[in-house]
Amino acid sequence: MSVITFVCAGQMNSAITFPAFENGHEVRLVGSPLDRDIIDGLKKDNFHITLKRTLHDGIKYYQIEELEEALKGADLVLGGVSSFGLDWFCDEILPVLPEDVPVLTVTKGMVDLEDGTLVPYPHIFAQRQPEGKHLNLNAIGGPCTSYELADHDDSHVAFCGKDIETLKYIKSLLETDYYHISLSTDVVGVECAVAMKNAYALGVSLAVGLAEKRDGKIGSQHYNSQAALFGQSVKEMTKLLELIGGKPENIIHGAGDLYVTIFGGRTRKIGTLLGRGLSFEEAMAELQGVTLESIVISTRTARAVRKLAERGIVSLEDFPLLMHVDAIINQGAEVNIPWKDFTWNDFSLAE
Amino acid sequence: MSVITFVCAGQMNSAITFPAFENGHEVRLVGSPLDRDIIDGLKKDNFHITLKRTLHDGIKYYQIEELEEALKGADLVLGGVSSFGLDWFCDEILPVLPEDVPVLTVTKGMVDLEDGTLVPYPHIFAQRQPEGKHLNLNAIGGPCTSYELADHDDSHVAFCGKDIETLKYIKSLLETDYYHISLSTDVVGVECAVAMKNAYALGVSLAVGLAEKRDGKIGSQHYNSQAALFGQSVKEMTKLLELIGGKPENIIHGAGDLYVTIFGGRTRKIGTLLGRGLSFEEAMAELQGVTLESIVISTRTARAVRKLAERGIVSLEDFPLLMHVDAIINQGAEVNIPWKDFTWNDFSLAE
Repeated sequence: MSVITFVCAGQMNSAITFPAFENGHEVRLVGSPLDRDIIDGLKKDNFHITLKRTLHDGIKYYQIEELEEALKGADLVLGGVSSFGLDWFCDEILPVLPEDVPVLTVTKGMVDLEDGTLVPYPHIFAQRQPEGKHLNLNAIGGPCTSYELADHDDSHVAFCGKDIETLKYIKSLLETDYYHISLSTDVVGVECAVAMKNAYALGVSLAVGLAEKRDGKIGSQHYNSQAALFGQSVKEMTKLLELIGGKPENIIHGAGDLYVTIFGGRTRKIGTLLGRGLSFEEAMAELQGVTLESIVISTRTARAVRKLAERGIVSLEDFPLLMHVDAIINQGAEVNIPWKDFTWNDFSLAE
Repeated sequence: MSVITFVCAGQMNSAITFPAFENGHEVRLVGSPLDRDIIDGLKKDNFHITLKRTLHDGIKYYQIEELEEALKGADLVLGGVSSFGLDWFCDEILPVLPEDVPVLTVTKGMVDLEDGTLVPYPHIFAQRQPEGKHLNLNAIGGPCTSYELADHDDSHVAFCGKDIETLKYIKSLLETDYYHISLSTDVVGVECAVAMKNAYALGVSLAVGLAEKRDGKIGSQHYNSQAALFGQSVKEMTKLLELIGGKPENIIHGAGDLYVTIFGGRTRKIGTLLGRGLSFEEAMAELQGVTLESIVISTRTARAVRKLAERGIVSLEDFPLLMHVDAIINQGAEVNIPWKDFTWNDFSLAE
């Protein structure tokens, strides 16, 4: 039996307590300052108020002030904040994590630098740990919604990090007969693939709203246009992967993750609202208070690509869908899918 | 104005009469011997009884005996039979098609040879035309359901063939503001990608039925397991593409086509029924009379891969999902997704 400490009681981190606890480990779940109500609820009756599931009886719950106690003797630390908690996690948590305990983060995302370089979160964590500190940082990618993991649905994710042995060790702690884990040392590839899918899931979801608008009927089912946007997304994501130096094989994680995100809640919701004809401000107002990774990642990726285009490294013509999503979000553009920019000729095999 | 003759009045061929007619061409739709009722219905009131849409008034309809008349002066011939009409099309139609008129087929599929080689239909047509005849054969790939095309939903397909100028010409005849067309000279790549998706759409759909069975509720929505199978499908399809000599970029067509097929009717139906626990015979009985490309293509592709594995060219371990689908269809195996065979390690970038 090992001790696994989960820092942040968000939905995904909390869902991973299921395989962890069922594997016989001591599970400690620590709420962030924003998770007070969640932890209070859990302490009362094990019910997680945002995941809307009852966690296993026997898990130990902690408020953030008890973090030090929760970390004592830990064999593995799980970290799960959204993009919006990134600074807090870097400033408050990284300094107190023990160096000899591997860390696995569930935060998917990238940050764009001044020169257009896109840096995945695990690398940001590495850069922002206190000077001289060398945490053993690893991350989770791949298609997995928290609700379904909590419900024991078969899910396949990828753990990535620099060190093979650490990855194997973490997998041995968390793998179950429904939580399936691949391993990869291509951190940039895995994280980039799964971060970008948020932007593109928004793009594909535009077609859902457009179809509803045309039919005048919410819930109207049309797939040709979604499929066309899906194919275009795979194309642009593959190009971005190359650009960032990740192996193109990671499109497998990206495509699966794109698939699940299109059906998975908030990103679909915003894309659908925009497709129906709401302005970005109106759509955001409907989603009041909800954190949207897809907006953050679309903006950052588009900004990076534009910077790289200025530098002559990429062509904006290779990213028409990303550019359109960005224009909708950040420049008040109306939804008007640039279909003609998606068609292309491959005459390289002509006789 | 050009003259476009559609041979076979199946759903997809008939749906393409919409962009063709709206572009101002003379459209002639010829029924196969199996399409008599369809043509009779169309002659009466333009209503297509299987597509369940009213075609444009002004289209000319022909029974198969009137084929010669329908071909007179044609500038383009569309051919659209299912895999099950392949022999008829080769034996009866190819010999009477004029050599100087380009042909565009909508039939997606591949045939496996004795040695495990997979040959796409356009190449089969080329081989089976009368000796000395040189038809200008082209084909359509990509994600497009007939109903939605008929409803003018935005759809993006790929036309492929050997000759660039022919492809551009055909595109000029059929492109509209909702029917978007990419062009490719990689016939093997495009056709292989879009043929295989039938097999893999069946594979992904197993998860739909499995979830319904577990929940005891038809229509239950679960996506993690579908997404995992989707990612695995993209992985295996990419490997098959390499194997067959198609460019891996065509996975874009394959992924989009896989996406639409998972939501698109018969293939989802059979996969779902199997996932719910029905035997293959029971599932087929429920789909009485329906032609299933997915069964044909799964069987052929699995047989080819097994032959290639015997010859030491591929490893069966690279195709666990395809092998499982084949075992269910052809060996009476129960559905038991080989999840552990999907996980893999990518340590190629380890430090």
